[in-house]
Amino acid sequence: MSVYTRVQAADLEDFLAGYSVGELEGFEGISAGITNTNYFVDTGSGRWVLTLFEKLSDAELPFYLDLMDHLAGQGVPSAHPVARRDGRFHARLNGKPAALVHRLRGASVDAPDARQCAAMGAVVAEMHKAADSFGGQNANVRGLDWMQRTRRELAERLDTEDLALLDDELAFQQAAARQSLPRGVIHADLFRDNVLFEGHHVSGLIDFYYACQDILLFDLAVICNDWCIDDQGRFDPAAWQALSAAYARRRPYSADEHDAWPGVLRLAALRFWLSRLQDWLFPRDGDDTHQKDPAPLKEILLAHRERTPALLPTGPA
Amino acid sequence: MSVYTRVQAADLEDFLAGYSVGELEGFEGISAGITNTNYFVDTGSGRWVLTLFEKLSDAELPFYLDLMDHLAGQGVPSAHPVARRDGRFHARLNGKPAALVHRLRGASVDAPDARQCAAMGAVVAEMHKAADSFGGQNANVRGLDWMQRTRRELAERLDTEDLALLDDELAFQQAAARQSLPRGVIHADLFRDNVLFEGHHVSGLIDFYYACQDILLFDLAVICNDWCIDDQGRFDPAAWQALSAAYARRRPYSADEHDAWPGVLRLAALRFWLSRLQDWLFPRDGDDTHQKDPAPLKEILLAHRERTPALLPTGPA
Repeated sequence: MSVYTRVQAADLEDFLAGYSVGELEGFEGISAGITNTNYFVDTGSGRWVLTLFEKLSDAELPFYLDLMDHLAGQGVPSAHPVARRDGRFHARLNGKPAALVHRLRGASVDAPDARQCAAMGAVVAEMHKAADSFGGQNANVRGLDWMQRTRRELAERLDTEDLALLDDELAFQQAAARQSLPRGVIHADLFRDNVLFEGHHVSGLIDFYYACQDILLFDLAVICNDWCIDDQGRFDPAAWQALSAAYARRRPYSADEHDAWPGVLRLAALRFWLSRLQDWLFPRDGDDTHQKDPAPLKEILLAHRERTPALLPTGPA
Repeated sequence: MSVYTRVQAADLEDFLAGYSVGELEGFEGISAGITNTNYFVDTGSGRWVLTLFEKLSDAELPFYLDLMDHLAGQGVPSAHPVARRDGRFHARLNGKPAALVHRLRGASVDAPDARQCAAMGAVVAEMHKAADSFGGQNANVRGLDWMQRTRRELAERLDTEDLALLDDELAFQQAAARQSLPRGVIHADLFRDNVLFEGHHVSGLIDFYYACQDILLFDLAVICNDWCIDDQGRFDPAAWQALSAAYARRRPYSADEHDAWPGVLRLAALRFWLSRLQDWLFPRDGDDTHQKDPAPLKEILLAHRERTPALLPTGPA
């Protein structure tokens, strides 16, 4: 959500005229995130986030925006797009696809405590269940095919050790059979900075622009790798226990999921190690952009190759 | 929204299991309003209002709940129903149709100032425009047919003077030709206690359960009679000027609307004088119910029969 595109008030006013949200009162760029340009926008009838999509096309957007509308409509505390007068959820601004979503209250939490982890586990389970009735289809754009393409792109910039790790891990992931795991619509990017809290309540899931059909366990692996592992790479068993137990109370894990978990944790670490390497080695231009350091994800991947935390709760529910 | 129906925690938990909103954390009855039973409900993923419909049937509810969903989805700050896992917006609780809607922030304002009136005028215009793309159909259940039926029900309980006033006003309203006035979906009950503010922003329009297709001017007449007339029956021209001008900037009035306005103000006063007389003379039982005094609406009606404020802004826009 770095600011790549500067928006002018007159253009924004024209854009807002397509909505029933009243007149522009103020706006400012948001300097956070990676992929898109975001602004806070205030109008006569509310507070909104404007997103200009720097990579997604008009044809790709309905899946994400319809999903957000579906989830918010079912009571999942997720960012909710605003429909235009013409019924669409997006239009063009500064020559880019752009959408207006409700601005959620709350703030992301750097060091979630056990209660916040439990609240998150419950919300993710509810999100997975609410998404069952969503009809849209979208493949994971950061799946194994993308990983193989990215490996070829990065190969000459990586040192021998990293390339060997990458190749060995890709071979392991290609060989993993996951057909028996429960699948559905997942968020696929549930880092702490994509979740807002008010106190111990989850007030918002945001940034659904990697959502796709994939194994449900992938969301939990992304969370475990980010929420329950500290800056020194140490696993926090109490945080993970709280999160996983709250999730499993709403959707019990299958035996196959217990078996697959160590490999899925590695998959989630690999996916973000790779995308951060790509952003790091091939940065994009922008007024105000930032990349995240790939190194911690590599450390997590290496640690999981040695020994992984259990999925929990273990055994039959 | 008086509490007619007592809800038990176990029944509420069963009801909430049909939603993706997490588990019950607390609930309490709301002692306000007239027609339905309402509770505040908190769950693991948010704060909600539960409404048990004391008069509306399962068949009647989709119009109202779909409208609220449509308006909220277009950015109108209106109460937003939560879809159940089965896709419906309502189910049964305590043997009555019941729905869960997002709990909005803010509070209603007893004495709105000019800025709040302007904000309200803008939001109502946006609501009327956003409702243009709503497909549902619903006749006004408090239209002239209902007024005639209610006159027969009340006749023997009214004194001679009130009955004469009622008959004279009904004859005037029956004779009024309003076919040329702009129509659409209206809220039809926009009293101050159905509008929430945060500071000078409208944060919520609630209680859409009289919404229907009718002349747009009716919403403005209800507002003018409640928001811009004080407890002593004195008209506040500054409040009305602010409200009407903000509305007309978004939807300019037609010449026919200027002509029809005095009669429509009388119609709105008559409608609520009658429904309050009905509630007053034939109260319903409930744990905690209250009626509103019909007398002030009669005074407003009498005043408008003498002289009415102008629609404003006058003349061509």
